[in-house]
Amino acid sequence: MAQTWADTLSLFRKVVGDDHVVVDSAEVERRARCLIPSVQRASAFVYPSNTEQLKKILEIASAHGVPLWPCGKGKNWGYGSATPAREGAVVLVLERMNQILEINETLAYAVIEPGVTYRQLHAHIKERGLRLWLDCTDGPADGSVMGNALERGIGETPYGDHFENICGLEVLLPDGRLVRTGGGPIDGYKTWNTFKWGVGPYLEGLFSQSNYGIVTKMGLWLMPEPDCFESCLFELGREESFPRLIDTLRELAFAGALRSKVHLINDVTTFGLIEDDPRRLLDGAPCLTDDHRARLRKKYNIAPWTFGAGLYGTKAQVRAARDLIKKKLGPLGNLWFLGDRRVGALKTVLAILKRFRVHPKHRPWVDWVSRAILRKPFPCLEALPHMHSIEKGNPSDYFVKHAYMKKLGAKPADNDIDPARDHCGGIWAGIVVSLEGGEVGRVVEHCRALARKKNLDINFALMLATARSIIVLTSLFYDKTDTDETARVLALYNEIAESTQTMGYQQYRTSTAFMGRIFSNSPEFKELACRIKGVLDPGNIIAPGKYGIDPTK
Amino acid sequence: MAQTWADTLSLFRKVVGDDHVVVDSAEVERRARCLIPSVQRASAFVYPSNTEQLKKILEIASAHGVPLWPCGKGKNWGYGSATPAREGAVVLVLERMNQILEINETLAYAVIEPGVTYRQLHAHIKERGLRLWLDCTDGPADGSVMGNALERGIGETPYGDHFENICGLEVLLPDGRLVRTGGGPIDGYKTWNTFKWGVGPYLEGLFSQSNYGIVTKMGLWLMPEPDCFESCLFELGREESFPRLIDTLRELAFAGALRSKVHLINDVTTFGLIEDDPRRLLDGAPCLTDDHRARLRKKYNIAPWTFGAGLYGTKAQVRAARDLIKKKLGPLGNLWFLGDRRVGALKTVLAILKRFRVHPKHRPWVDWVSRAILRKPFPCLEALPHMHSIEKGNPSDYFVKHAYMKKLGAKPADNDIDPARDHCGGIWAGIVVSLEGGEVGRVVEHCRALARKKNLDINFALMLATARSIIVLTSLFYDKTDTDETARVLALYNEIAESTQTMGYQQYRTSTAFMGRIFSNSPEFKELACRIKGVLDPGNIIAPGKYGIDPTK
Repeated sequence: MAQTWADTLSLFRKVVGDDHVVVDSAEVERRARCLIPSVQRASAFVYPSNTEQLKKILEIASAHGVPLWPCGKGKNWGYGSATPAREGAVVLVLERMNQILEINETLAYAVIEPGVTYRQLHAHIKERGLRLWLDCTDGPADGSVMGNALERGIGETPYGDHFENICGLEVLLPDGRLVRTGGGPIDGYKTWNTFKWGVGPYLEGLFSQSNYGIVTKMGLWLMPEPDCFESCLFELGREESFPRLIDTLRELAFAGALRSKVHLINDVTTFGLIEDDPRRLLDGAPCLTDDHRARLRKKYNIAPWTFGAGLYGTKAQVRAARDLIKKKLGPLGNLWFLGDRRVGALKTVLAILKRFRVHPKHRPWVDWVSRAILRKPFPCLEALPHMHSIEKGNPSDYFVKHAYMKKLGAKPADNDIDPARDHCGGIWAGIVVSLEGGEVGRVVEHCRALARKKNLDINFALMLATARSIIVLTSLFYDKTDTDETARVLALYNEIAESTQTMGYQQYRTSTAFMGRIFSNSPEFKELACRIKGVLDPGNIIAPGKYGIDPTK
Repeated sequence: MAQTWADTLSLFRKVVGDDHVVVDSAEVERRARCLIPSVQRASAFVYPSNTEQLKKILEIASAHGVPLWPCGKGKNWGYGSATPAREGAVVLVLERMNQILEINETLAYAVIEPGVTYRQLHAHIKERGLRLWLDCTDGPADGSVMGNALERGIGETPYGDHFENICGLEVLLPDGRLVRTGGGPIDGYKTWNTFKWGVGPYLEGLFSQSNYGIVTKMGLWLMPEPDCFESCLFELGREESFPRLIDTLRELAFAGALRSKVHLINDVTTFGLIEDDPRRLLDGAPCLTDDHRARLRKKYNIAPWTFGAGLYGTKAQVRAARDLIKKKLGPLGNLWFLGDRRVGALKTVLAILKRFRVHPKHRPWVDWVSRAILRKPFPCLEALPHMHSIEKGNPSDYFVKHAYMKKLGAKPADNDIDPARDHCGGIWAGIVVSLEGGEVGRVVEHCRALARKKNLDINFALMLATARSIIVLTSLFYDKTDTDETARVLALYNEIAESTQTMGYQQYRTSTAFMGRIFSNSPEFKELACRIKGVLDPGNIIAPGKYGIDPTK
């Protein structure tokens, strides 16, 4: 018997309740709204509240041949948020499945459901007074911890490789069966959350950047609170030293002095953070020329490249790390080290300065004070405690502000940042490069050259994945109301992704706009991935097309 | 047309040459000889020399329905060596595929073929004067680096989780196609060996402790030679402090002071190492009673538990680690720290002492000197440089000597250790336990109680996998000529493996004698693993039954 769409919806409603099935087109648009310039539309949003409901939804979808697009919170901004890879899929938002099932302080792990957010997990840990630190991204505090980890997102601290710190998954397979990784029974071995590899084939990787199942529970390793913590800010003196900086980062990472996932940002990114209305910097030009960037760097005393990092350990370990960093990076630029006490004092000063700064007449002396402290304008000083805090795993939307880069008008208040709601435009392409100065320099220059031809700026964030590789993240921002700029950004995005792939560089992860092409030069791998998909999900129900895995295409 | 076994063999011979197909039953017995008490017999040994030959062998085997059992060197002593999980399989030894394809000193990795051994890779690195350190196991120096890593073996240094340090696999799939992990093209992305997760699903775990393909090339991360290195030896003062020792190891591992994969061995293991003919210690009894062990500990001044570890880093980092270890472990027992210079001097002394020790009349004063230096008999002193050396990744057969535990007569010379050749009996069961004193104590006591009932000793090696879990490795040695002891060991092995599995503890890896039962309480996981096997290897040709993966059973 042929089933109609209305039948399917009414069955969904019976499972999750009327309020949790959304089909109204304006509402669907609002919930699917994202930053990227090319998306496939969703047909509905469905919100199950537990695994039983999820199972039933999957059963209905399978019976009716309706593709599902599961996501934790759908805040995957620059990669497509909650929008599916295939037009018309039903978006399954798992945000109501948001229980923190266990936290083990001694063994430093948590077991969580898909809807648990950074903000929620952090607050929970603090409330219970546990001596554990979370790792968060510099993205939205209300993002899903599980979603980011399964997409292999990178955070800030030594626990910043989020996939690496997964230990134990419970997965709903497309055929409706539950399975736990680790080779153990359905309730898991005792070490399900403490021993990563389990016994027999290690299958957790199957459920990352893919569509072989829906993860319903996840173990995540947390960092025991270190005895001592300091954050560190570095500014590169001269652009010419960039390759040497990269090589030095490698040495420091190998030596264990830099264990945090350093984000090295370019001047354009810094401008976007410190300017309240960064679009104005363009002065009507389509993008910043090299000269213009140089003038702005001088005006704000901003470096071509800047990074923040954290040092963690006993006092002696932190001292050893600090000494090595000073020795190796000191000759290349400026370094500041900040402990909690200094940051506390700074916050007091900032609170006072901020109160005065509201009045334009006080701005000059407030800026003078800021320059006296840091030799930089006030917004740079203001950013320091946020940098310090994020290196301790305190989630914050502060750095999400840079998504307003090309948005006309002033940014919203720090506690009201929501680039999707505010129609900001942006898309990210992350390219993985071996951690060698020459290599990284070449890729950065290649992307810049492509951008120049299109009269566009690139916000770079180079994220230290390990001592051996770095992710050259290019964020391309645009004004959604400007159709020409939107088209140029989409073209540049495609050029960056395609040309680097052809040059032999892999993407770190990819947006729904590029998933169909992610294995364009890897037919053998795609064939293998699709063969596994075919046997696990013969109906092609779960996220068809996610990361190019679609046996029908 | 039905093919005969003779046809198959003649086709194998055409591919690899007559010398590289072995069917003579005495030769097959010799090559399949292993330590464990229950094995399935191999029908032949075949030795391809490159991937092309391997492909052809696989093609023939598939066409003829002949199961293959691939291994690197077949030196997986206590887990079944080269013997297959299914009776009659053809053992495919890949030792002739032994090229070191690349070593990158800057990014600290190697790309190797299946037959490359620890000894070979170590010698190659030293010859070329590369500032890189290998991690080896305390097992045979001629073992396969790839084989151990795919079986998820544990070594000694911070790079001791061998599977964790795999980056980039080339795999021959059962259908004869080659694929590279990482989501890239067939010659791999530029970061194939520097960025572990690739793009799209992370599939390397599929090829570990399993039978989904034959790995033909592997990237392996190596340790950049540290500025400073010290080894450290610890002896627990009193058995009662064991739980506290375990909790302290966790703290030190979390703090990064202990980064090496500590092997905590019990007194029985130490006796086996230092006694030239350890069977004599039994004095005719079937095993050591608690009293007897206590007397022997006193006689040799041996601790109930002992471990060696390495400290790696800059001078300041090593000092910080040493200070923390002293502070935390000092109250629990004896600690020694050894630098290269001290070990060099010790070696000179040892060479002299050794020359005199050959003559029984000199033994008393040699032992007196040894006790003056270390308060222990000569063989303990002799072991120190080996411990120091293995923590630097220098492979050696020295510690393999403990496999002669129950063998009658004196051990062979240090450079002629081969327990398979010498008909030693031994089998290992490794149980993974969360790193908590109480938990680990319970499992150790449980195993001891089972052994006591069977009048058997257990050689324990507790291997620190991470800060969160430890592998309680039980090595059960026996005299192969003693059928009663052999039967008791097999029964104890089965009891340990089954009872701990039922109690909720996973095996770390398993021998061919237990593979059929490894998923006995995990039907969901087994079903998933077998479903993948079914689609990748519908003919069930590659290692059927390995880790219980056999869709026909």
